[in-house]
Amino acid sequence: MADKPNDLMEKLVSLCKRRGFIFQSSEIYGGINGFWDYGPLGVELKRNVKNAWWEDMVRRRDDILGLDASIIMNPRVWEASGHVGGFSDPMVDCKECKARFRADQLSLVTIAIGDDVLLTCGIETDDPNEAISRAKEKGNSKTRRKIANAGDRLNATVVRLDKAEEGTPQFCPSCDGENTLTEPREFNLMFETYIGAMQDSTAKAYLRPETAQGIFANYKNVLDSSRVKVPFGIAQIGKSFRNEINPRNFTFRSREFEQMEIEFFCHPDDADMWYQHWRDTRYAWYIEHGLTSDKLHLRDHEGSELAHYAAACADVEYEFPFGVSELEGIANRTDYDLGKHQEHSGKDLSYYNDETKERFTPFVIEPSGGVDRATLAFLCEAYTEDEAPDEKGEMQMRVVMKFHPRLAPIKAAVFPLVKKDGMPEMAHEIHAELRDAGLNVFYDEKGAVGRRYRRQDEAGTPFCITVDGDSVADGTVTVRDRDSLAQERIPATDVLAYIKERLG
Amino acid sequence: MADKPNDLMEKLVSLCKRRGFIFQSSEIYGGINGFWDYGPLGVELKRNVKNAWWEDMVRRRDDILGLDASIIMNPRVWEASGHVGGFSDPMVDCKECKARFRADQLSLVTIAIGDDVLLTCGIETDDPNEAISRAKEKGNSKTRRKIANAGDRLNATVVRLDKAEEGTPQFCPSCDGENTLTEPREFNLMFETYIGAMQDSTAKAYLRPETAQGIFANYKNVLDSSRVKVPFGIAQIGKSFRNEINPRNFTFRSREFEQMEIEFFCHPDDADMWYQHWRDTRYAWYIEHGLTSDKLHLRDHEGSELAHYAAACADVEYEFPFGVSELEGIANRTDYDLGKHQEHSGKDLSYYNDETKERFTPFVIEPSGGVDRATLAFLCEAYTEDEAPDEKGEMQMRVVMKFHPRLAPIKAAVFPLVKKDGMPEMAHEIHAELRDAGLNVFYDEKGAVGRRYRRQDEAGTPFCITVDGDSVADGTVTVRDRDSLAQERIPATDVLAYIKERLG
Repeated sequence: MADKPNDLMEKLVSLCKRRGFIFQSSEIYGGINGFWDYGPLGVELKRNVKNAWWEDMVRRRDDILGLDASIIMNPRVWEASGHVGGFSDPMVDCKECKARFRADQLSLVTIAIGDDVLLTCGIETDDPNEAISRAKEKGNSKTRRKIANAGDRLNATVVRLDKAEEGTPQFCPSCDGENTLTEPREFNLMFETYIGAMQDSTAKAYLRPETAQGIFANYKNVLDSSRVKVPFGIAQIGKSFRNEINPRNFTFRSREFEQMEIEFFCHPDDADMWYQHWRDTRYAWYIEHGLTSDKLHLRDHEGSELAHYAAACADVEYEFPFGVSELEGIANRTDYDLGKHQEHSGKDLSYYNDETKERFTPFVIEPSGGVDRATLAFLCEAYTEDEAPDEKGEMQMRVVMKFHPRLAPIKAAVFPLVKKDGMPEMAHEIHAELRDAGLNVFYDEKGAVGRRYRRQDEAGTPFCITVDGDSVADGTVTVRDRDSLAQERIPATDVLAYIKERLG
Repeated sequence: MADKPNDLMEKLVSLCKRRGFIFQSSEIYGGINGFWDYGPLGVELKRNVKNAWWEDMVRRRDDILGLDASIIMNPRVWEASGHVGGFSDPMVDCKECKARFRADQLSLVTIAIGDDVLLTCGIETDDPNEAISRAKEKGNSKTRRKIANAGDRLNATVVRLDKAEEGTPQFCPSCDGENTLTEPREFNLMFETYIGAMQDSTAKAYLRPETAQGIFANYKNVLDSSRVKVPFGIAQIGKSFRNEINPRNFTFRSREFEQMEIEFFCHPDDADMWYQHWRDTRYAWYIEHGLTSDKLHLRDHEGSELAHYAAACADVEYEFPFGVSELEGIANRTDYDLGKHQEHSGKDLSYYNDETKERFTPFVIEPSGGVDRATLAFLCEAYTEDEAPDEKGEMQMRVVMKFHPRLAPIKAAVFPLVKKDGMPEMAHEIHAELRDAGLNVFYDEKGAVGRRYRRQDEAGTPFCITVDGDSVADGTVTVRDRDSLAQERIPATDVLAYIKERLG
């Protein structure tokens, strides 16, 4: 596509709303920044992503157990994990207009022709290209005209606020005030609430910012109740909350989101081996589910990037229209987490191997993925514009969501060509047969069949089954393939087997 | 069983922890009142409950669409719904000891022999029997002896604080102070939090106390994106939060819980018919999944019990060991909710029927069930003590969880009788075949086979498949039925079909 990235994102957001994948939360009340709702197609897509993960990571493995911990936990969990003390973003305030910004998302831009500085300003983004393009729209009309006419002679420099040398002039993105910003201060990202009737410090609790700590807090209970032996993992899917200052990029960075996380406990000597295993397994999982293009990357962190508790870390990244961003992180967290919880709870969290007679604190390998991010990547990857013939055989632009069949919200649609001559009855029968076999199928008899195909293309339905005049006579139907547009005529009695085989 | 109700509940809670169904949240930090975690068996049980509901209510019906709305919504949603103004409990404080109680859960008890009053006190419960039995343990040792010796001559009266006549002496359950309690004041049950960096009134938001309002707020988006026609319903499963003052009865009344709700939109003239449909459908659903005993009731509310917005309401109730309590409510909410959201949002939420040319605001029938409550009822119903022969053929007490096969966390377990002579290899093969067919199966080769059976009985596994010496020779295995204890010998190649048929 020749689309600019932002155009593609706009088209996708619009399709998501129009077809019921994703809505802005509380839209009839003007929305709420950083919160999103999944509509009828979106909820099925997201369910399929979660179920595929659970099926592959928990049910089909003998070494992983499931868990579902509460969102609100004893606040001491977050003291032990370090979130109360350290889970924060650096914020600056404008003393003039009172606006607030993240220091690591604020760019200082200078636009000049040679030595002739046309414009200096602050822009609220950490993307240099975006900073420059938005800076070009600042200033009075004369400056903007100069910039527009400068062509190749223009040069622009961008410095992130938190990396600027001391003494560099700073600008507020909101009111353009010069040197009106405070020094960066740390702002905790956990949402706070109070339990019980009193709103005092003894009643303070947090919405979990990650599901991982629920696993560590239950490690001993799972071990004691399951007779499981190290190495083993605990898997969990659930909502987490972060009070992001700047939610952005659709559902990618939101304040309420869903995670799918595994904490895999192993002997320290085996940690490297299991780290490699999970790094490769999780990367392959995204490829298996359709992110086959060259947009998926596995990036190993360099030593300087590693969190203080991690011995190794790799990110599965995807080239979203808004930039390359993380879908999942796989980290060797050593014995940091169990050690911290042992220290803070006073409970012995070591493991005794009764064959080797060895006692040790297990190392933890953590593959931590975002459900909403994975869903968004599958949406971006699926979005395709191509051409398909209309009723008159003329080629028309077509929007089609090429989801992996396992993830497609609707697996098949059944249409009677027209609403008469026994076609609806036969179509209903096929529809009922597929539905009773557990498939999510859709029946549609409204409007021209070409339009019905297009609607299913936008929903990403892999197969459309059409009952026509011949069907009633000879018991055959046509099956149309979403991607190739090929139509095959097969006996109606073979439809279920045909589709099941292709769904894998 | 001859067990007292509380004994049964204690046994169940203990089994839930020991076998990994349900743990107290943050247990290594002393827990947190009103929050629970689901362990490896519990998470599978709860997933099966939710999936069965979704499958039956959404996928197998053409008139229901799914939704997954955010937990935090624009606070105006809760103004429109009436929760900001009215979702509260009456609380009293003790001026002396500063303790706080719910006025509708505080009993004033008087214990006397004839006219000789032995004791007057306040007890924090709304159960008269519990109030009396706890009151008997109050007072000094002389009073307690008198009470113990009084036998039949004792009489006790219990009055709930909020129903006591003016002038009745009041007692604090904590410090026993007489008339130290304040007048009842309303305390809102919604958890509050703040979005963004400022903690002021403009940033205040709430954790949803019910999933229903997320459906009403999305009603128009779903209608516009799905081409669906009234009558239709929107279904949602998700977490809700209520700042209960007195969480109790295990997972029954907790502060964080999961709901499965449908809002079904219909023409006002059809509301009675759809109300009956949902009342009957939902009651039948619990019976189909194993609550077949006489412990399940469908109770129609009387006029005086109805909420002001409801035209009719029925509760599906279950006889828990701690009393008869609600699993699900089915209500005809009229056009109250859409009307309120239309008024507060200024958006037109009426529906236009283009066949009858009629415009109207749909009525709503709401079947609203609790996932944790349903799961707890299935646990209570499943818990059975009977007798089974041990290794030596002697009868021993057995604890067995008789879950409906569709809900059982593990569908089948595969055992080699001993760890040699090719038995483990053959058992592994059967295990892999069942697992690849999508069943949650468990392989176990540790310890005596009788103990392995018992462990699966406690987990509620319907079928145990044992590979013995004959199996290796003639290719047959035994299948043991959890409930009847009958063992059948069948060809190993038939095991998958045998189990699939019985899982239904």
